[in-house]
Amino acid sequence: MKENYSQWYNDLVVKADLAENSAVRGCMVIKPYGYAIWEKMQAELDRMFKETGHVNAYFPLFIPKSFFSKEADHVEGFAKECAVVTHYRLKNAPDGKGVVVDPAAKLEEELIVRPTSETIIWNTYKNWIQSWRDLPILCNQWANVVRWEMRTRLFLRTAEFLWQEGHTAHATKQEAIDETFKMVNVYASFAENFMAMPVIKGHKSANERFAGALDTLCIEALMQDGKTLQAGTSHFLGQNFAKAFDVKFADKEGKLEYVWATSWGVSTRLMGALVMAHSDDNGLVLPPKLAPFQVVIVPIYKKDDQLKGISEKVAEIEKQLKAEGISVKYDDSDAKKPGWKFAEYELKGVPVRLAIGPRDLENGTVEVARRDTLTKEVVNIEGIEKYVAGLLEKIQDGIYQKALDFRDKHITSVDTWDEFKDVLANKGGFISAHWDDSPETEQKIKDETKATIRCIPFDAVEEKGKCIYSGKPSNKRVLFGIAY
Amino acid sequence: MKENYSQWYNDLVVKADLAENSAVRGCMVIKPYGYAIWEKMQAELDRMFKETGHVNAYFPLFIPKSFFSKEADHVEGFAKECAVVTHYRLKNAPDGKGVVVDPAAKLEEELIVRPTSETIIWNTYKNWIQSWRDLPILCNQWANVVRWEMRTRLFLRTAEFLWQEGHTAHATKQEAIDETFKMVNVYASFAENFMAMPVIKGHKSANERFAGALDTLCIEALMQDGKTLQAGTSHFLGQNFAKAFDVKFADKEGKLEYVWATSWGVSTRLMGALVMAHSDDNGLVLPPKLAPFQVVIVPIYKKDDQLKGISEKVAEIEKQLKAEGISVKYDDSDAKKPGWKFAEYELKGVPVRLAIGPRDLENGTVEVARRDTLTKEVVNIEGIEKYVAGLLEKIQDGIYQKALDFRDKHITSVDTWDEFKDVLANKGGFISAHWDDSPETEQKIKDETKATIRCIPFDAVEEKGKCIYSGKPSNKRVLFGIAY
Repeated sequence: MKENYSQWYNDLVVKADLAENSAVRGCMVIKPYGYAIWEKMQAELDRMFKETGHVNAYFPLFIPKSFFSKEADHVEGFAKECAVVTHYRLKNAPDGKGVVVDPAAKLEEELIVRPTSETIIWNTYKNWIQSWRDLPILCNQWANVVRWEMRTRLFLRTAEFLWQEGHTAHATKQEAIDETFKMVNVYASFAENFMAMPVIKGHKSANERFAGALDTLCIEALMQDGKTLQAGTSHFLGQNFAKAFDVKFADKEGKLEYVWATSWGVSTRLMGALVMAHSDDNGLVLPPKLAPFQVVIVPIYKKDDQLKGISEKVAEIEKQLKAEGISVKYDDSDAKKPGWKFAEYELKGVPVRLAIGPRDLENGTVEVARRDTLTKEVVNIEGIEKYVAGLLEKIQDGIYQKALDFRDKHITSVDTWDEFKDVLANKGGFISAHWDDSPETEQKIKDETKATIRCIPFDAVEEKGKCIYSGKPSNKRVLFGIAY
Repeated sequence: MKENYSQWYNDLVVKADLAENSAVRGCMVIKPYGYAIWEKMQAELDRMFKETGHVNAYFPLFIPKSFFSKEADHVEGFAKECAVVTHYRLKNAPDGKGVVVDPAAKLEEELIVRPTSETIIWNTYKNWIQSWRDLPILCNQWANVVRWEMRTRLFLRTAEFLWQEGHTAHATKQEAIDETFKMVNVYASFAENFMAMPVIKGHKSANERFAGALDTLCIEALMQDGKTLQAGTSHFLGQNFAKAFDVKFADKEGKLEYVWATSWGVSTRLMGALVMAHSDDNGLVLPPKLAPFQVVIVPIYKKDDQLKGISEKVAEIEKQLKAEGISVKYDDSDAKKPGWKFAEYELKGVPVRLAIGPRDLENGTVEVARRDTLTKEVVNIEGIEKYVAGLLEKIQDGIYQKALDFRDKHITSVDTWDEFKDVLANKGGFISAHWDDSPETEQKIKDETKATIRCIPFDAVEEKGKCIYSGKPSNKRVLFGIAY
């Protein structure tokens, strides 16, 4: 991990059976163990969306090309990286070898595989909205999207990825702004309470804003190599898409007004964040709340009759753990040795391992190992379920606290350009610095250092200062970093 | 419904807020109420798949064109109806109006939007399988697929649809065959126990088999217009895809063998089946187990102070119902009259409606209306939760029984060609008849009558007879019908 973080990450994702590259450029296969983590993320997020009044729906995969031209910034942001469907049929090749595209089956208008769905959804909302009574609309969809990235990395940047995209429609500007904040708070709460990953909430600068948004809110996290990762965004879209698709509503006085919009999303990128936030050289470290199984039990035995006694005791333990709502896997396969299994489940990030042998049976004990700290202790089987339940909570908190300590040590305030470059080169993390609020300065800083403004934190305090780059006046610090 | 079944179906799907056509030819928008039913279907099916040992994964949306040529029948079956991605970028139009496909961004090899995933998955399994220890692989994926249908109908036949596709790999032929049967049984159990829709399990004839399968098992249902609907299929693929993608494993003796395969799927087509199996001229009739909410409570009042008393009582009732695991919506909006609400929730197929007014409060009663039978009765509020719980079970059973009676009345045994044509024209349903086992005869029958063999039922009894069309000998009856 220390030697080559990038290689470590890629190896870990593959070795821990999370995902792998497919035969299609930039598209990944999410393997069952990785998908099981994503399903847990989905379940929690979906619950949180529904608790905040949202419903799910599904919109088409394809977007007519002309829809993209309707919102100027949007087409600028997405046209350069999209998969285009031009034909709807193959036919046998004239030479009899394989199949070729049938030129007779050319579409009148090309279809874009959705890179995001604002355009097709607002074209639909046009028919759903006539009066203030039809508002708000609070829809979310779980879907796949495609952005033709040139340099891809498993989970972090892939041509196809899975995500959710919320698209809401409101009668007033304030209500839409409130929604934008509500959802970034949902994302922050999910990241911190489930992923055990501390995040900073803030506004994006104009340069980093979503194509078509008036304001983009985000949660930003720190990875263990000192780079930052945008983990979720929530956009206040103003009336841009309503104007592009002519979506008006009659207000209570009967006056026609354009509808206000938000959109917000998180993706399988969170899987990459989860791996990079907590893992170590032994493999994944999963927070108990997202682990496909929280406890693995490994029997230690030499003779088959020993296994029988152990398995009987394990059956009792499993039952007690499950009654506490703890998910358990008992690995009694005889194809592998305990040492191999220990390494395998460390690699997979299983939070707690129980090992039990003949001597444990005699003593009424079990060996309990924590994945996060790699510590072990011998514990009485009596009451083991309460002990493990408490331990899982400790691990969830411990992982979060460790990431928080690391993050807080890597927020550095600097006041000069030299300091800025020095911290960026030698320490990494977030750099808190004054900035003159101009896109040009941000671009110059990016050109010289690769650092960008990750966010203008919600909790930034008013403070007079000078821009570290231009020397122009500034009234608050923003956070810079090198981003994934 | 009786006058124009097809129009009735389409109107109902739209009016009940299940789905609507989108701006993209053949692609639908699944609206929140429709999606909520689909989510319930997904949850139950997913649970059943996991209980039978399957895990979820995710494979790419795109399939390289060359993969299709590797399995001869498969390409024949799917090449004629697929969306083809040929470019990966748009650019600003030379005339400044909108965007055009960038000819410089042409893909070296075209990508097909998956119509089904056997090819990309078996290309992946090649790397997952070396030895018998790697088998079986029991993966499922929830995904969208695209088949460029020329004539589309909401849910029943759409260019894009949502589905699940299971893809399993086995060491022996028998194990793969067992899996194929296991999954068609899972589908039948889901259709009957959750959708309240009786189905007939059987084999497809060669003409109706999946492109690339050695045997296709299916569940077939009867709709209220006498047409039949294929609701789910499970395919025994033999070693076809293993051979096409060169997937071999070393058996326990170290001998290399090709892997045996199955695939199985159900789709949003089930939504169409659900609508057509039970609904009536008043709207949807939903089985309680799949209804987004099972009970709606409507207050009947004239003055606002009456509403307050009613709402207090309803809060108690809601709490009691929820404690029984019953989902409830209380519609106390004052924008609509009770009569409007009654019609609306009948349209939406809510299984049970409770209406409560001031006189009910005095008497400690509530009016209970059943959606399926459209009957009403006055019931004591005391113990209402047990009463409603029992009623929901009765409705679930009642809907199933009604559909079963209808289905059983519409399985007609015929022994002559004239009878066959007569029943098909005047009664519809399944026709049980002898057939000479030849694809040519089936094709001729289809050409003359549009009827096809829906399945060769598992429970078909040995019986000597003569093919109704060719007069050749036959040893069992098969089921014909006009299919959706």
